[in-house]
Amino acid sequence: MSSFNVELKKVVDDSYEIEIGYELSNQLVEDLEKGLVGKIKRFAVITDSNVRDLYAKPICEKLIHSGFLVDMFVFPAGEKSKTRETKAKLEDAMLEKGYRRDCCVIAIGGGVVSDIAGFLAGTYGRGVPFINYATTLLAAADASIGGKTAVDTPLATNLIGLFNQPKKVYIDIACWKTLPDRQMRSGMAETIKHACMASMDMFEFIEENLDDIMNFKKFACEYITENNCNIKYQVVMKDEKESGLREILNLGHTVGRAIETVSEYKLLHGEALAIGMAAEVLLSARLGYMSEEEAQRVIDLYKKTGLPTEIPDYIDREELVHKLYTDKKVRDGKLRFVLQKGIGDIVEYTPGVYARPIEEDLAREIIMEL
Amino acid sequence: MSSFNVELKKVVDDSYEIEIGYELSNQLVEDLEKGLVGKIKRFAVITDSNVRDLYAKPICEKLIHSGFLVDMFVFPAGEKSKTRETKAKLEDAMLEKGYRRDCCVIAIGGGVVSDIAGFLAGTYGRGVPFINYATTLLAAADASIGGKTAVDTPLATNLIGLFNQPKKVYIDIACWKTLPDRQMRSGMAETIKHACMASMDMFEFIEENLDDIMNFKKFACEYITENNCNIKYQVVMKDEKESGLREILNLGHTVGRAIETVSEYKLLHGEALAIGMAAEVLLSARLGYMSEEEAQRVIDLYKKTGLPTEIPDYIDREELVHKLYTDKKVRDGKLRFVLQKGIGDIVEYTPGVYARPIEEDLAREIIMEL
Repeated sequence: MSSFNVELKKVVDDSYEIEIGYELSNQLVEDLEKGLVGKIKRFAVITDSNVRDLYAKPICEKLIHSGFLVDMFVFPAGEKSKTRETKAKLEDAMLEKGYRRDCCVIAIGGGVVSDIAGFLAGTYGRGVPFINYATTLLAAADASIGGKTAVDTPLATNLIGLFNQPKKVYIDIACWKTLPDRQMRSGMAETIKHACMASMDMFEFIEENLDDIMNFKKFACEYITENNCNIKYQVVMKDEKESGLREILNLGHTVGRAIETVSEYKLLHGEALAIGMAAEVLLSARLGYMSEEEAQRVIDLYKKTGLPTEIPDYIDREELVHKLYTDKKVRDGKLRFVLQKGIGDIVEYTPGVYARPIEEDLAREIIMEL
Repeated sequence: MSSFNVELKKVVDDSYEIEIGYELSNQLVEDLEKGLVGKIKRFAVITDSNVRDLYAKPICEKLIHSGFLVDMFVFPAGEKSKTRETKAKLEDAMLEKGYRRDCCVIAIGGGVVSDIAGFLAGTYGRGVPFINYATTLLAAADASIGGKTAVDTPLATNLIGLFNQPKKVYIDIACWKTLPDRQMRSGMAETIKHACMASMDMFEFIEENLDDIMNFKKFACEYITENNCNIKYQVVMKDEKESGLREILNLGHTVGRAIETVSEYKLLHGEALAIGMAAEVLLSARLGYMSEEEAQRVIDLYKKTGLPTEIPDYIDREELVHKLYTDKKVRDGKLRFVLQKGIGDIVEYTPGVYARPIEEDLAREIIMEL
């Protein structure tokens, strides 16, 4: 018997820039001309059926005009497309067009697009660079920092995927204007979550400037975008592999994701999250981590934003409880919830642990109330 | 417009140990008891239908005996199983059994098993640890170092995958005894390739000890395994992302992979590689990089090992040339070949570039001769 040591210690630099502004497509072209992804001249633009004509096509045209080789790969819009099958179809289409390892993927769209495109880029030719051009508020808040990419499977949400950092992220606030109203409101759910989690100032800003945000006023949209990035960055940076602190980003998601699934995606992610946040603040209040008034204030802001804070009638509450307690995060029969400490802070349950085990009975009680 | 910098510079240590020896299953159990993968107690053993009863089941039993939670996930043996579909089926089976992110994947088998299991582990829950228990000579030579994992798609071989380093590799030479003779010979193809590429001593050792290797004599098998690891390690270490030097591992593979595909996998990887190596030495001799005698000596060693060095009649040579010149490595209409300089060295075509562009006509000429 002999043994052989493979030494693979190295410094990895995955740093990247997030550009926040209005109409950033010229900036993207300029960055690529300046060598953002080195000598690569071939770009696979991945987008969905909603974003194609609005933003992806014009950007492709600009890129082609600048001498790049560009193809657009489009899949049907919606969370239901976030599957291994969509990824495989896109891969086959890229292979068909002759894409090999010397290419770069550009995701243009919302969270579903960046999730699929980022995952695809991470396994295409064992990894090609990718750029994220985020066109929705939700993608801005949720998909720009952290490098999480994934697809859903029949048995699990976001469980098959990769950590894959983009080369650059563009958050184009101008694109939000064409978002369906429901999508824009849905995007606000994560933004309000960030405020609940980490910043009373941000929470108050949203309370005071909600109309300006919903009317795409530059100062208000830039403010929330910068704060979204900053809060998520602070959390993710301190815990890149999601062992402890990063878990707090799951605030409201325990119930939210289950509702999203049980609703068969009739509810948008943010809508389901809003209900999940309502469940979470009720639970936090019940356990004494925040006052009833604070819980109500959070619920009121979600309501004012036009988001649901009650479980729709077509969802079977018992099915939801069952779904929750067969969730991936169940340990020893207890589901762990991230909870708020007032508004703008998180409960640290035990040192370094930010989720508290909750018995099925208590969770059922809250869910029956919602 | 504002911008935000995400700093993600860090030190990553993917170092691991390769254990080479006879009957290493007790060593594996002991390592896991000692905390090789930390506190993880749940193991998904991935194997194929050939290896299941021979080695995977006994290892599972030992692990269960030691108190670990273990399930075995089996797919049909063969290169044809190396697909996204097999990966998805295994994922679904693991999800069905309740596997989440706190598990470890153990690959027990040859190269196909380690390729699929390594890729699966890299994307399961965005990455769980994996251990490679290699039962074939080919896996020992090819799959133990480099971290390359991948699946095949209808349009490309090994193009969808990941770089994913195992936590430990076990090369159990005792398992080679149950390899079908054809598999064992096929495994020798990569071993001889390594010798051709980097070591005249190793080449001569194989010439002199071929019978002992084929009869699983300990000294001979350990010698070639250590040399295989060492050569591959030297190459991979110097160029982890396959930009330049690592390309030399493709020696013989340009034609070899195309033959493997065109044969519809009737030829094993090593058999196709042997023919690819014959093509490569003929080309190297034609271009003056080695003598006719050296080329013949390489071909003779492949023949003596019982491997094919001529293109089988059922393969259409024109189809093969077409396949080659639509290969992923074609640039400007020229296919790039790694070539040998004598035996035990590689041609450095231009500084840092180890592959030489070859016109379609010259490649056709060689292929017609084979």
